[in-house]
Amino acid sequence: MREVAVAKLVVIGVGLIGGSFALDLRRAGAVREVVGVGRSADNLARALQLRVVDAASQDAAAAVADADLVLLATPVGQMDALLGGIAASLPRHAIVMDAGSTKRDVAALFRRHLADSLDRCIPAHPIAGSDLSGAAAARYSLYEGRKVVLCPLPETAPAVVERVSALWRICGADLVCLDAEQHDAVFAAVSHLPHLLAFGYMNTILARPDADTCLALAASGFRDFTRIAGGHPEMWRDIALANRDSLLRDLGAFRQQLDLLIGQLEAKDSDALAAAFATASQARQAWPPAR
Amino acid sequence: MREVAVAKLVVIGVGLIGGSFALDLRRAGAVREVVGVGRSADNLARALQLRVVDAASQDAAAAVADADLVLLATPVGQMDALLGGIAASLPRHAIVMDAGSTKRDVAALFRRHLADSLDRCIPAHPIAGSDLSGAAAARYSLYEGRKVVLCPLPETAPAVVERVSALWRICGADLVCLDAEQHDAVFAAVSHLPHLLAFGYMNTILARPDADTCLALAASGFRDFTRIAGGHPEMWRDIALANRDSLLRDLGAFRQQLDLLIGQLEAKDSDALAAAFATASQARQAWPPAR
Repeated sequence: MREVAVAKLVVIGVGLIGGSFALDLRRAGAVREVVGVGRSADNLARALQLRVVDAASQDAAAAVADADLVLLATPVGQMDALLGGIAASLPRHAIVMDAGSTKRDVAALFRRHLADSLDRCIPAHPIAGSDLSGAAAARYSLYEGRKVVLCPLPETAPAVVERVSALWRICGADLVCLDAEQHDAVFAAVSHLPHLLAFGYMNTILARPDADTCLALAASGFRDFTRIAGGHPEMWRDIALANRDSLLRDLGAFRQQLDLLIGQLEAKDSDALAAAFATASQARQAWPPAR
Repeated sequence: MREVAVAKLVVIGVGLIGGSFALDLRRAGAVREVVGVGRSADNLARALQLRVVDAASQDAAAAVADADLVLLATPVGQMDALLGGIAASLPRHAIVMDAGSTKRDVAALFRRHLADSLDRCIPAHPIAGSDLSGAAAARYSLYEGRKVVLCPLPETAPAVVERVSALWRICGADLVCLDAEQHDAVFAAVSHLPHLLAFGYMNTILARPDADTCLALAASGFRDFTRIAGGHPEMWRDIALANRDSLLRDLGAFRQQLDLLIGQLEAKDSDALAAAFATASQARQAWPPAR
């Protein structure tokens, strides 16, 4: 039998991300006890009923007092208050990992609240978001074949990186290490920018006098292009503000590409348009790259 | 048994769109003979082998000489030459329908080449594109529940609109009538604009020094947002140029929405960002509208 890697895992925010992590580790025998922490009693009751967690608490500070691993799986916007609330009761040996979509801001929060325990802090970003939330969204094998980005601080102990890497591997994840700056630059480009473009595009349609006809006749291209515009407004507001500098740089770069296309179309520059479309099309057809 | 509605259907361009139309009509007994016309002998041989067509020809003028219905299912860019080539041999009673993505330009081509037969001409746009092409892409029930937009000319005989409507209904299509101007305005907004944004977005990523890392870490949001960037470069070049004025207007409107978001992000206007995202998100979650 596999040695139990974690005696007590505390998941703060029992939803798709945190709940699925707990399910896989317990199925593998890699964790003895899972305690779920959250603000919603209903969601915690559901998590208990679905056996996503073994115990539940609305008191984060009490729950972490004898934790071996704490996973912060809440929106990043809640982490400042959460870390402030648990800092004093965290045992010295506990590892603290988050699962937020931005990493420089989380690294800064670890520095603010856990300055004496940075060797135990590991910012992480599992790339497995979806429109689902709440404990009922948790499922086995969510992370199978998915990328999980680890952004260790310079102070993070190598042994801590190894321990959490082993846990993510148990979940089937494909690990990538980046520093927080690289992470935020890459995810501004491949996630945050397209979300803003999709929001802006939807609002362009809604501003039209014939918006209803447009929405009635829109088909599969529209469906896929705008799927991410259905994202959670406050969550995306927080991400956009947290990654503001990278995102503004990328919005500027996109605007340049857009202005190029507008200029080519104004000039009826057939060859330039076909060449620009061909570059994009070839790259998209070659995606995803072979592993 | 259903009365045979069409004795001889000539499909010029035997691919997903034209081939699927022929398959459904023949299965329903609504057409006696289907003749496929194309430039590629290989594709015509495949169409015969798959029994998408009963006969094949590379000579459009000869094939249409005793046609009852001609479906132009080629890219719009080929229609000028095609209509010029078949005009003299089209029987007076034959209906001519296209299936192109833009409609003002097709209406103008009908006027140029078939000025004496406009009562028999019907611009149409079945909303059932996909990345597939060639006779092997043809399939039964492609049009089941899909929208087909008819854009009759002022001169198109009502009886012609009724006959082709009956055929599309046999295919299971949901018919919508618009004039060509409305059609082109709506499809600039819901199809042509997002294609240009997706092409421009892909090129923004490709221009980055960390493009490879970006493409390696991009996930499901990127996948869906960029799917249409894999479209055919020359086809989309032709569509963009054919619908240039509508598309430029919409690109300008999108740029205004983008500049709004950039301004809100620069000003760290949290409330305005959340409100803009919420408007988009609610509309996307309410899509598709109930029929």
